[in-house]
Amino acid sequence: MGRNYTLTGIEPADVWNYFYQISQIPRNSGNREPITAYLMDFCQKHGIKARRDEAYNVIAQVPASPGYEDAPSVILHSHVDMVCIKDEGVEHDFSKDPIRAYAENGIVTAEGTTLGGDDGIGMAFMLACMADAEAEHPALECVFTADEETDMDGGRRLDYTQLKSRYYINIDGMGVAVGSAGEIDVRLLMPRSHTPVKEHNLVHRVSVSGLKGGHSGAEALYERANAITLLNRVLLELTNHADIQILSLQGGRAGGCMATAIPTSASAVIAVPESHMNGARDAVAKCTAVLKKEYARRDPGISIVLESCDSGLDALSDEDADKVLDLLTLLPDGLRSTHQDFAQTLGSTSNVGVLESRDDVVEFAVTIRSTDTKRFYLYEQVCRLAGRLGVDVELLCDFPAWEYSVNDQWMDMIRRLYPEYPPFLLGGTGEIGYFTEHIPGLNAVSLTPSAYNCHSTGEYLDIQECAYFYNNLKTLLKQMKELEK
Amino acid sequence: MGRNYTLTGIEPADVWNYFYQISQIPRNSGNREPITAYLMDFCQKHGIKARRDEAYNVIAQVPASPGYEDAPSVILHSHVDMVCIKDEGVEHDFSKDPIRAYAENGIVTAEGTTLGGDDGIGMAFMLACMADAEAEHPALECVFTADEETDMDGGRRLDYTQLKSRYYINIDGMGVAVGSAGEIDVRLLMPRSHTPVKEHNLVHRVSVSGLKGGHSGAEALYERANAITLLNRVLLELTNHADIQILSLQGGRAGGCMATAIPTSASAVIAVPESHMNGARDAVAKCTAVLKKEYARRDPGISIVLESCDSGLDALSDEDADKVLDLLTLLPDGLRSTHQDFAQTLGSTSNVGVLESRDDVVEFAVTIRSTDTKRFYLYEQVCRLAGRLGVDVELLCDFPAWEYSVNDQWMDMIRRLYPEYPPFLLGGTGEIGYFTEHIPGLNAVSLTPSAYNCHSTGEYLDIQECAYFYNNLKTLLKQMKELEK
Repeated sequence: MGRNYTLTGIEPADVWNYFYQISQIPRNSGNREPITAYLMDFCQKHGIKARRDEAYNVIAQVPASPGYEDAPSVILHSHVDMVCIKDEGVEHDFSKDPIRAYAENGIVTAEGTTLGGDDGIGMAFMLACMADAEAEHPALECVFTADEETDMDGGRRLDYTQLKSRYYINIDGMGVAVGSAGEIDVRLLMPRSHTPVKEHNLVHRVSVSGLKGGHSGAEALYERANAITLLNRVLLELTNHADIQILSLQGGRAGGCMATAIPTSASAVIAVPESHMNGARDAVAKCTAVLKKEYARRDPGISIVLESCDSGLDALSDEDADKVLDLLTLLPDGLRSTHQDFAQTLGSTSNVGVLESRDDVVEFAVTIRSTDTKRFYLYEQVCRLAGRLGVDVELLCDFPAWEYSVNDQWMDMIRRLYPEYPPFLLGGTGEIGYFTEHIPGLNAVSLTPSAYNCHSTGEYLDIQECAYFYNNLKTLLKQMKELEK
Repeated sequence: MGRNYTLTGIEPADVWNYFYQISQIPRNSGNREPITAYLMDFCQKHGIKARRDEAYNVIAQVPASPGYEDAPSVILHSHVDMVCIKDEGVEHDFSKDPIRAYAENGIVTAEGTTLGGDDGIGMAFMLACMADAEAEHPALECVFTADEETDMDGGRRLDYTQLKSRYYINIDGMGVAVGSAGEIDVRLLMPRSHTPVKEHNLVHRVSVSGLKGGHSGAEALYERANAITLLNRVLLELTNHADIQILSLQGGRAGGCMATAIPTSASAVIAVPESHMNGARDAVAKCTAVLKKEYARRDPGISIVLESCDSGLDALSDEDADKVLDLLTLLPDGLRSTHQDFAQTLGSTSNVGVLESRDDVVEFAVTIRSTDTKRFYLYEQVCRLAGRLGVDVELLCDFPAWEYSVNDQWMDMIRRLYPEYPPFLLGGTGEIGYFTEHIPGLNAVSLTPSAYNCHSTGEYLDIQECAYFYNNLKTLLKQMKELEK
C-alpha cells in the first residue's frame, strides 16, 4: 500500500477527516489566529455556541443529546498548537505550509516534519464528537487551549469559573493517565571573579560524555546518571589529589534556561600544577572506574577523559571554585521518592540540567518535579543552599501537579472500558494541573492514543489505537448517564 | 503441647542439642571468654585444629571428608555474641543466667529475653556439621567471630590472610542473601551560643510523633517519613509566617551517637511573638495537612502538635537557629537510589537519625548506607555542607559493603537448592563486607533461617525453616565436589 496523503479510507473516517483539515492549517505555538478561527468557524457551521478568550482559548458548549439532560456534563480538552521540527534539508515553512501527513502500514506520520499528532488527534476526536448528530452524550464543555507546548499560556489564563462540569477528559497524553507531576524550574546565577592561571599550571579539559540522558520526569525512574553530577564527582576527586584551578564549566543544554532534560555530557577546563599531574590522572582513572561500575547497567556508555587543551581563559577564584563545587554537590539531583499509591511511578525528582560559566556568572538550572508536594521542599533546599552561598535564585516556572482525583465509580467504569491500559501517572507536566487546581472536586482523566516519538520528526499515530480510543470515548460519554449529576 | 525447655525431640536433633548448649553460656557482646572457651573445648574433643586470636575470634580447620580432597574448600561463618534485651520486670542476669529457650507450636523462642537465635543458630549449624563424622564436605574453615552486634570488632581484626578458601557461606541473616549495604555513620557537633527569649514571646513546643520508623537500611524502600525531617519542614513553614526563636531540639534516639533507626518522634521548643501566634498556628495547621497527605499511605499515624509549654531555657542565637535549619534542610535524608541489578533493593539511603540540642552544642547524627559506592558521595555531601557552615564532622563508623560476587555455577546450584528463597541483598550491614574486601575473588553467600523479631524479646526461630536450611547446607557442601578447586 502506498502513501495515502488524504487520510481517506481509514477509520474512524470523521476523525481522520478532521485531522486532515487541521493539518492544512499552520499552528506552531504562538501562531494562534488561523487554527482558532477555524474552530470558531466550525462551531458556527454546526450551530454550537463558542467563544474565544484573550489567550486564544476556544470554549464551546455542546448541549446534551436527548435523554442526557440529567447526566453530569463533561469537559473535553485538547490543545491547538504543535511542536514544529523538520528534518535537516527539508523545505518546509511551518508558518504557512500544510503538514504532509500520510497513512501507511497502519500508522499516520508526516513527511520530513513533526506530525502534530500531539495534539491534533485530541482536536480531531473532539471535532468528530461535536459534529456527530447521532452521538449520545451529556452536555459537553469543549476546551481547546493555546500555546501548551511553550509556557502553557492558554491553560494558565483560562477562566475556570466559567466551567461547570465536575468530570473532565483530556485528550493529550498517552494511554489512560490519572495524574501528572508538578514542575518548578529555577535558575541560579552565581557572580564570578577572575584570577590568572598560576605559573607552571597545565591546562586540561575533563569531559564526561556518552550518557543516555532522557526526560528528567518521564524517565526519572530509570535512575540514569547526570553528566553534570558525574563531572562534579570527578572534580571533587581531583581536588582531593591536586591543587586545581577551574577555568570554565559546561554541561547540559547550551545556553538554555530550563533543565528539563538529563544532561548527557559535561566538561570543565582546569589547570593542574605540573607536579600534581600524576595524582590528577590517577584520581580521574580511579573515579572513572567507580562511576562506570556504579552505572554499568543504567548508563553503560559513560566516558570520562582528561586531556590537555589550549585556553586563553582566566580561572575562577579559589573561593568561587569552592562555591561551584558546593552548589554542584548539594543542589538536589536525581530521584528523590516514588509515588505512595501507584507502583513504578514518580514521587519526586530533581535535575541539575544546565551548567555554564560565562564571563560574569556561572549559571545553574534545576528542574524539580513531584506528583505530590515534595517539590516545594526540594525548592526550599535550593533556596536555602543558594541563600547560604549568597547566590540569587530565579523562579522560572511553577506548574501545578495534577493530583489523582477520580471517584471510584467513574474509575471502575474507565478500567472496564480500557482493560489494556492500566491507569498511570505521567512523569511530565501538563495543563491538567490548572484544571484540578482551579475546579475543586474535578474528576480528571486523560484518555489518549500515544503520539509516538512526539516532539521529533519520527512522530506517528497508530490507526488502530486511535480507533480504539475514539470508540471508547464515545462509549464512555454514553455511559455518563449512569453517574449522578 | 507444652513448653519444651530441653529442645529435645525436634529435628535436626544435633542442631538443637548444640543450640541448647550454647544457650547455657552467657554471651552478651564483650563477654567473649566463656563462649569461645566452649568452642575451643569442642574442637579439642572432636580432634579439630583450632585457634583463638586476640579479638577472640575462633578459627577451626576441618579436613575434607574422604573423596573431597579435590573439592574447593569453604569458609563457614557465624558470630558468637548476642543482643541481650529482657522484658520489663523479668529477673535475668545476662552475665551468668542461661537463656530460657523453649520449643512450642513449631517455633523456638525464649522466656522474657532475646533468644540469641541471632546468631546461635549459625553456631549450632556449624557445630553440628563439624561433629558429624558421616557428613560429606570439602575442607572447611570454620570462623566464629566476636562482638558482631556492637562494633564488629572481631570481623574487623580477623587475619584474612590465613583463610585459603574462595567459597564462603555465612549463617547470620535471613534467607538467601548475596550482598549487603555498606554503612557510614557520622556525628556533627555544632557549637551553639545562648540568647535570652525576647520579651512578649510565648514559649511553645511543636512535636511530631506517631511515625512508623524502622531500620534505616532494611526498611529504606518503604520510604517512610523521618520525624526530624518533618519537624524541620514545620519549622521552615513557621519561619515563613512568624519571627520565631528556637530554644531546644530533640529527635531520634535520646543521647545516642548512631542514627541507624528512622526517628519516630521529634520536637522543638520555640518562642513566638504574641502577635504572630495566629500566623504560627495557621502555618502548623497548613503544614500538618500537607505532610499527612504526603505520607497518608506510608505513615498514616503522623501527629503534629503545637502547644504552649514552660521553659527556663535560653534560645539559640538567630544565626545558630538558621544554621540548624540549613543543616536539617540540606543533610541528605531518605532513599537516594535503588539497586541497578536487583529489583526492590536498596541502592543508597541516608538517615538523619539523631538531633539533640545541649548546653554547648547541637548534635546531629547521620547514617548513610549503600550497596554500591554512592555512600561515599553522600558522605562528601555531609562534609561539604558542614565545612561551609563551620561544623566539624566526626566519622564514627565506616563499614564496607558486601558487593555481589558469586560465580554463575555456584549461584545456579544455590538457586536450585533454595527455590523458595530468591537471592536478595540485605539492607543492613554485616561482617561479610570485611571478608569480600580482604579476600579477592571470594564467592560469598548467606544461607540462614530468619531469627524473626531479632533484637527484641519476641525473637524466635521457625523449626521447619531451620531444618530446611540445615539440610540444604549439608547438601550444598556435598555438591561442592562439582566445582573446580
